[in-house]
Amino acid sequence: MNKKIVNIGVIGCGTVGSNFIKGIISKKNIIKEKIGIEINILKVFDKDKRKLSQFKKFAATSPEEIIKDKNIDIVIELIGGIDYAYEFVINAIENRKSVVTANKYLLSKYGEEIFKKAKEKNVYIGFEASVAGAIPIIKSLKESFVGNKITKILGILNGTTNYILSEMFYNKINFKEALNKAIKLGYAEANPQLDISGNDTAQKILILSYITTGKFFSIDRVFVEGIDKIETIDIKFASEFEYRVKLLGIFKKEEKQVEIRVHPVLLPKSHILSLVEGVNNAVYLEGDLIGKSLFYGEGAGGKAAGSSVISDVVDISKKITSQAFIEENFISEDKFSLKPFEEIETRYYFRFTAIDKPGVLAKISKILGENEISISSVIQKQDNPKKAVPIIMLTHKAKEKNVKKAIEKINKLDVIKKETIIIRLEENLM
Amino acid sequence: MNKKIVNIGVIGCGTVGSNFIKGIISKKNIIKEKIGIEINILKVFDKDKRKLSQFKKFAATSPEEIIKDKNIDIVIELIGGIDYAYEFVINAIENRKSVVTANKYLLSKYGEEIFKKAKEKNVYIGFEASVAGAIPIIKSLKESFVGNKITKILGILNGTTNYILSEMFYNKINFKEALNKAIKLGYAEANPQLDISGNDTAQKILILSYITTGKFFSIDRVFVEGIDKIETIDIKFASEFEYRVKLLGIFKKEEKQVEIRVHPVLLPKSHILSLVEGVNNAVYLEGDLIGKSLFYGEGAGGKAAGSSVISDVVDISKKITSQAFIEENFISEDKFSLKPFEEIETRYYFRFTAIDKPGVLAKISKILGENEISISSVIQKQDNPKKAVPIIMLTHKAKEKNVKKAIEKINKLDVIKKETIIIRLEENLM
Repeated sequence: MNKKIVNIGVIGCGTVGSNFIKGIISKKNIIKEKIGIEINILKVFDKDKRKLSQFKKFAATSPEEIIKDKNIDIVIELIGGIDYAYEFVINAIENRKSVVTANKYLLSKYGEEIFKKAKEKNVYIGFEASVAGAIPIIKSLKESFVGNKITKILGILNGTTNYILSEMFYNKINFKEALNKAIKLGYAEANPQLDISGNDTAQKILILSYITTGKFFSIDRVFVEGIDKIETIDIKFASEFEYRVKLLGIFKKEEKQVEIRVHPVLLPKSHILSLVEGVNNAVYLEGDLIGKSLFYGEGAGGKAAGSSVISDVVDISKKITSQAFIEENFISEDKFSLKPFEEIETRYYFRFTAIDKPGVLAKISKILGENEISISSVIQKQDNPKKAVPIIMLTHKAKEKNVKKAIEKINKLDVIKKETIIIRLEENLM
Repeated sequence: MNKKIVNIGVIGCGTVGSNFIKGIISKKNIIKEKIGIEINILKVFDKDKRKLSQFKKFAATSPEEIIKDKNIDIVIELIGGIDYAYEFVINAIENRKSVVTANKYLLSKYGEEIFKKAKEKNVYIGFEASVAGAIPIIKSLKESFVGNKITKILGILNGTTNYILSEMFYNKINFKEALNKAIKLGYAEANPQLDISGNDTAQKILILSYITTGKFFSIDRVFVEGIDKIETIDIKFASEFEYRVKLLGIFKKEEKQVEIRVHPVLLPKSHILSLVEGVNNAVYLEGDLIGKSLFYGEGAGGKAAGSSVISDVVDISKKITSQAFIEENFISEDKFSLKPFEEIETRYYFRFTAIDKPGVLAKISKILGENEISISSVIQKQDNPKKAVPIIMLTHKAKEKNVKKAIEKINKLDVIKKETIIIRLEENLM
């Protein structure tokens, strides 16, 4: 058997980068025994000299040194962010190197261009670590479910927000307290806006949607709502109705349209997804052959993401040590367009904040009825008659555009004291 | 781009076979667009002429015609059973054909020989469908978690037994009634012994253990216990203690030893695995990098298993249309032996059936104490004082060999009226 060697260069020695480097060094021999290929780290770069100093033996003086090194086969981009990362990835591909990246922001923005260029240059892009940490969702969608038409993906894709919602549920603390706890424990960034706004989840569901359909949609075209308006009281009322509140990335495919959206949802407590707690991630799928499927695991952390980077490097090493280029095209079996958000139909949870006097419920119900929104359950509990009280409603299936119209009108009623909270339901899952 | 064509032959047109054939025909174009390879069915065989008649166009006159056809690259064995399947698979490999099989019985018995021969002949073996239907557990263990030392696998790997246990829990029917329901609905074979005895689960956990460690253990060397002794009352008492009863395939790896065993367990209700209901399958894993992970999905059915066969065929097609042979060795990072079952330590559930008179509990407790088994909870409910009553105990951690000794002694007490039921606990999972 001839000796097979693959050389790699790593840009970025943060949490994922350093875990990956340590992992691939300590696992080098076992990987070689498993696949017959020796994977060598040739060069490593980080602009932070202190981080780089952990890996002196491999230290490069610039990212360009790695990108232009003729002996390097795979460039691993783990710096995150968008400007430099874009430049490094594109240049690496131009230099005919395969690329492994964990950068969901980059891929959700420039993925189309990156994948196109990679195909032109006959190189591979590995990106398992960009979505859901150690969960092999990218590989499963691309390879294990290659024969499937995927019709639904529901993902708990952001550990920070899931941790906050779990804390609010179990410890009955409010959003702010839960967020502070997450920051204190290192689960949330000092600036957690990307997480709590739902944007991080949106980047990830857009990547999964791309693999599934071959179409990239800009994040500006999809509805994205975060969890910052959710109050502990919503979580409590949801629980009374036997639901949990979770932030989901949602992808649904009908014949001619796809729905892509990110927002908090009420999930039935009996559904496995509703039991995914803390910083964990999970992805629920439906496909024409596989039926219903769920993946659950650690969504963050250097080791988990590092494990996915190792898996990508090993896969690409197998491909580049064999001769022929293996295509990997993301395509849809049929033509479709993006369903406008206003056209979606679902059940709704409303929390109205109204003054407690006769006729309030009638006023609200009338507007809902005029907009073809039919109520399935109501909770109104007397709290403090001097204060505004919460009125909670669950509806039957209604149209988003009708809900928008109705709630705008209801919010203008003089008996309504605060903006109405809207949470959509996801049901009929398993 | 040069044209890439892979030709396949299928032996066996039962549920999985016919679903696979229909699937690969209807998905041929989309798969070609995805990976740039055309996958053609050349020949199909089934000894049942009626089954074969669905696929007249491809009908072969014998399995040998397929195995010896120079134009066939991959032989798909979907007949099940062991004698013919062994012969066909070995002969196909001898003829330098890659093989895809869903045959867990074959692999758990002859896997070592089959994989060795495949490596000698530079061909590939695909066997995703042999364990847990559509769940990509084989691929994930081999590829996605390639950098991990897997320390624990707990699998609900048999849909029939899981369905029976779910029915007993939700509908409070007994084992026999649940089994009959499963047979009636087509979830269980007319002779379901392989399922309820735990042997089917054992074959599957042995395959997963092999991928993880590179060692095949004979089924005779592992402890296998089925679900036929479980009564509805056990499920009810387990529930009072906040546990569910599930049949698990268990693999655990310590430094120098592995545990492999199959038996019913009490799983905490809070654990996701305990919520896997009906004919579904699930696999829970722990690894040094990935942490904790769970896969859930349809464990049976022609479409689900067919999806996994398609995935194997596509993977192997990619490999054989590239030039170099990619090794795939299953090895362990360290040497180890199989832990004797008597050496395991775990918590236990006991159901004693005793006559209801003073001193019974003292007699039982004394024997347990003498064998270093310490009790954590007891339930004894007066039922009918003239009849023997159940006494339920949960223990702290104890050694299997001590439990065996104690229970043998207790079963001989004159106050004990039936063989004591023993169920082991699995805890500290997530």
